[in-house]
Amino acid sequence: MSRLVVSSFSVSIDGYGAGPRQSLADPLGVGGTALMEWVFPTRTFQRMHGAAAEGSEGETGIDDDYAARGFAHVGAWILGRHMFAPSRGPWPDDGWQGWWGPSPPYHVPVFVLTHHARAPLEMEGGTVFHFVSDGIHDALARARAAAQGRDVRIGGGPATVRQYLAAGLVDEMHLVQSRALLGSGEPLLAGIDLPALGYVCTERVATPRATHVVLSRRRAAAA
Amino acid sequence: MSRLVVSSFSVSIDGYGAGPRQSLADPLGVGGTALMEWVFPTRTFQRMHGAAAEGSEGETGIDDDYAARGFAHVGAWILGRHMFAPSRGPWPDDGWQGWWGPSPPYHVPVFVLTHHARAPLEMEGGTVFHFVSDGIHDALARARAAAQGRDVRIGGGPATVRQYLAAGLVDEMHLVQSRALLGSGEPLLAGIDLPALGYVCTERVATPRATHVVLSRRRAAAA
Repeated sequence: MSRLVVSSFSVSIDGYGAGPRQSLADPLGVGGTALMEWVFPTRTFQRMHGAAAEGSEGETGIDDDYAARGFAHVGAWILGRHMFAPSRGPWPDDGWQGWWGPSPPYHVPVFVLTHHARAPLEMEGGTVFHFVSDGIHDALARARAAAQGRDVRIGGGPATVRQYLAAGLVDEMHLVQSRALLGSGEPLLAGIDLPALGYVCTERVATPRATHVVLSRRRAAAA
Repeated sequence: MSRLVVSSFSVSIDGYGAGPRQSLADPLGVGGTALMEWVFPTRTFQRMHGAAAEGSEGETGIDDDYAARGFAHVGAWILGRHMFAPSRGPWPDDGWQGWWGPSPPYHVPVFVLTHHARAPLEMEGGTVFHFVSDGIHDALARARAAAQGRDVRIGGGPATVRQYLAAGLVDEMHLVQSRALLGSGEPLLAGIDLPALGYVCTERVATPRATHVVLSRRRAAAA
């Protein structure tokens, strides 16, 4: 079964999924890097970002297990525009190809939500960025087709996660309660009535770095 | 030094400090009891609510340590009106003496914020409820005087905690991230820029039931 999932999505103590004023210098918003401190030491992160080649194997354990689980069985991704680029509005002719360099860590088709059409962008390692300007439902349909039975993972940011949550389309969401305190930024869950949408907390495991929480949506019985 | 503290204050995964629609049947709002599930098994709670007399000694450990710490060195409490009573507006002549029966678990003076003046209420065991209708600063001044050098603890609810936080008056706040998912209710931290107010996360300890987080306010150097 192809599920729509959110994985390894960090939130601050005060409920923000990203800091304020995203820019080239602050891809996760001001202070937002603190949200991800739990993942940096993991083997999954270290290998993905080449540090393993430099002799760092990274840590295994619960944090790593969750990080790794977020990449298993994923056949396509959906990203909001800001997860792909710091620019706003019509695409500037600036050669931007995403935050991740020539070989992004996706290795599958990635569907980027945008109000401004743009030709697909084929990267090294199997990642192809497709730009979808017909809304979240169209992006999901295209991602599901591309995933060929595997899961579709929403990478973020908070606004994108919120849209899919509010539409009742997310099957499972793995949140990571970090020890970051941001003060301002993009709230993740505020104003979304998750129990009313059918979500329950199905997992909670804490580590010295973070608390992992899984929210799952009860599906109506199949007809 | 007499500090103003918030202790053992539970929040849901989605950031609520109480459920919606508080009433006599739902003192913590609908669903709000789930916020407190971490504390019920503790020795501190069991002893406080008489279960120890029935043979239940309660659990010791980290959750209990935090629960107990919240009562140490406390010389006075501040409560919002709704923490004392489910009624709203002018005090009804209903004989209400608080949620806790004839011997409340405070055993010190308790200052209840209200817009409606009322004579003090002396209970068994040393608890005296004073009703303060001149605002949060007046309540704090009276509580500090009554505490005689010990701490003043804010018992809640969320609206009361938020007022003292926003005024920069809280020295230390111990939050308990529970696994409750409420969907609606009273947000605790939304819209309050804690880092800008000088707060930093100084402690984080997770247990199987909850994650304990302590936020402390950096004081300006004494003149």
